[in-house]
Amino acid sequence: MAIDPVDLLGRLISCPSVTPEEAGALDLLQAELEAIGFSVTRLPFDGDGSYPVDNLFATRGQGGRRLLFAGHTDVVPPGDTVHWTSDPFVPRIADGRIYGRGAADMKSGIAAFVAACAAIPPEAGTIQLAITNDEEADAVNGTEKLVRWMANNDHGFDFAIVGEPSSTETLGDSIKIGRRGSFSGKITVTGTQGHVAYPHKANNPLPVLAAVATALSTEKLDDGTAHFPASNLELTTIDVANPVSNVIPMSGTLRFNIRYNDLWTPESLADWVRDRLASVDARGTEIDFEVSGVPSRSFLSPLGSDIDTLSAVLAERTGKVPEYSTGGGTSDARFIAQYGPVVECGLVGPSMHKADEHIAIADLTGLTEIYASFIRRFFTESRA
Amino acid sequence: MAIDPVDLLGRLISCPSVTPEEAGALDLLQAELEAIGFSVTRLPFDGDGSYPVDNLFATRGQGGRRLLFAGHTDVVPPGDTVHWTSDPFVPRIADGRIYGRGAADMKSGIAAFVAACAAIPPEAGTIQLAITNDEEADAVNGTEKLVRWMANNDHGFDFAIVGEPSSTETLGDSIKIGRRGSFSGKITVTGTQGHVAYPHKANNPLPVLAAVATALSTEKLDDGTAHFPASNLELTTIDVANPVSNVIPMSGTLRFNIRYNDLWTPESLADWVRDRLASVDARGTEIDFEVSGVPSRSFLSPLGSDIDTLSAVLAERTGKVPEYSTGGGTSDARFIAQYGPVVECGLVGPSMHKADEHIAIADLTGLTEIYASFIRRFFTESRA
Ligand SMILES: [Zn+2]
Ligand SMILES: [Zn+2]
Repeated sequence: MAIDPVDLLGRLISCPSVTPEEAGALDLLQAELEAIGFSVTRLPFDGDGSYPVDNLFATRGQGGRRLLFAGHTDVVPPGDTVHWTSDPFVPRIADGRIYGRGAADMKSGIAAFVAACAAIPPEAGTIQLAITNDEEADAVNGTEKLVRWMANNDHGFDFAIVGEPSSTETLGDSIKIGRRGSFSGKITVTGTQGHVAYPHKANNPLPVLAAVATALSTEKLDDGTAHFPASNLELTTIDVANPVSNVIPMSGTLRFNIRYNDLWTPESLADWVRDRLASVDARGTEIDFEVSGVPSRSFLSPLGSDIDTLSAVLAERTGKVPEYSTGGGTSDARFIAQYGPVVECGLVGPSMHKADEHIAIADLTGLTEIYASFIRRFFTESRA
Repeated sequence: MAIDPVDLLGRLISCPSVTPEEAGALDLLQAELEAIGFSVTRLPFDGDGSYPVDNLFATRGQGGRRLLFAGHTDVVPPGDTVHWTSDPFVPRIADGRIYGRGAADMKSGIAAFVAACAAIPPEAGTIQLAITNDEEADAVNGTEKLVRWMANNDHGFDFAIVGEPSSTETLGDSIKIGRRGSFSGKITVTGTQGHVAYPHKANNPLPVLAAVATALSTEKLDDGTAHFPASNLELTTIDVANPVSNVIPMSGTLRFNIRYNDLWTPESLADWVRDRLASVDARGTEIDFEVSGVPSRSFLSPLGSDIDTLSAVLAERTGKVPEYSTGGGTSDARFIAQYGPVVECGLVGPSMHKADEHIAIADLTGLTEIYASFIRRFFTESRA
């Protein structure tokens, strides 16, 4: 049974699946996937300080190498609909494009890999799909728990593709092979409050806070690696909020964020920060450091034959070897990377999260063909 | 006509003259002063961004050396009256003390110098009184304009005594001969906002702000002078208020306050700050400096025979040479100091601004005798 990716994308856009409401999007996919031979498990997760989220795991075929496609059905809110030419949740086709919230990010990626699977006989090999409805918001009860569940239930994978928009200018010009990690922290320096006229009775924490800021922002973390730029720390805020000009404040805080490459882990970064703090003369103040939130880990998928195969498929289509990129923000690929090699390979996404979000229909059918070609080769070509 | 300082203080306390309402306090003084031969001019001032204030100038005698007594009838609010044993605006005498708002700060000082004047024959010499009803709040339409008016109307003075509580432990143990100045400033560093993932497109102002903080707080201003401790700068706040951990902020501000001695003026301090800022590498950011509010000038009254005379009067009474102090906060003496030598000499003030504010009656009569002795010697002893 063939699936038309444009038709499927239109039906997905019609589900107003703003995080965390799946709004029928996962039900629709379940029906389509079961019709082409997948066995589907719905995995609702909740707790850990976030809202409940519905997730979908699907698998087809047995034995041999296992391919995983991953993605999300949730979309960001449309914003003020006056900026949209038409209803963001009614697909509109015009000028060779399809418009609607999620058209680029990333209902098209899902439509493409589901349609590609439909074009491949079930006996070709083991294909798995991991689809969440919470990538755009907390991501607490989504992909992270979904891939942990897979690992605990013997659904390993040899290679994973996340269908996020990854192309830069034209379809297939870039594959994301890794992502930088993100680490945020907070430093509080506490001294002794007092009156500016009697500084000997106080201990101003702000000169120490300034020294901490300097210590954190002058030392380079590294010089970059083969596929990543240098890790970088930015001070994001310094706050005391003392409204009175005659009072020496008791404490001040500084917050920072580090975007870091594959040389670091959250643990080694925390050590690095502690080392920097130890280099500051505390002058009797107390310097406290805490990690803010849950850091996202950096990852770099091991370069090897599967990425080479994907690259060859793209080069054949576009006439150009794709760039291996590690740029941009964070994505759910960071959770998948804990269990196996993962890349992001999808459409061009400049309209994502904007009004009149859209993709070119030719790109959608092109991506479907790319995925199908890759699947065939993944199951037939010899392993390096 | 003799005036009983305890009676006068009681009547002054009965006027609820919370800044800027004179509430009859100045009317009462005008009547008392006219009765002992003073000619009184009321000087209401307003404008310059503050509320209107009533002030009183009084003068008696002609020619020779001119003595000025200065003070304020306004008081701080009583606060929650549950903390008071009785009505803060009804004088209460108990255990040799008189209780009420303004008992220490400084209706007692005024009662003492008015009673002292009553004890001196008008022909003894020229005595002037400058009394404002706005020392505790803005001080915009009070003593500063009052002494400027005096200068413009040929009411110069050779020596001035402000009747603020100046004693440390016991009556007469200390004279304030000067005050430090206070200078507040604000530094804003403006860079270019951006996303932490793309630092090359931004220019983070916070490392520069930290360098500014360090530059301002590491260089000593001076080592102190004969009568003053070293000038001192305190950073009072640093604020960015960026709530988001993935954004490089556009700007940050730092505020500081300098308490400074007689080596400096607001003008020379502003130059010093600009020099410190020039030592910081701005790295493409913009560093702006502005003075906050109106700095209060430091002053040190020239030590000489009038202070010696006052010191001798105190020593005779207490058996100990008083300390010459320049400690504590700011007072209206800073305005008077622009026109001539001024000291603060008054009661012990630990209860000022508090509930159950009070003074010892013996101290009030003692201070009246001290003022009277000083007046006599001021007009009769030969000048050095
Ligand atoms: Zn996405
Ligand atoms: Zn006072």
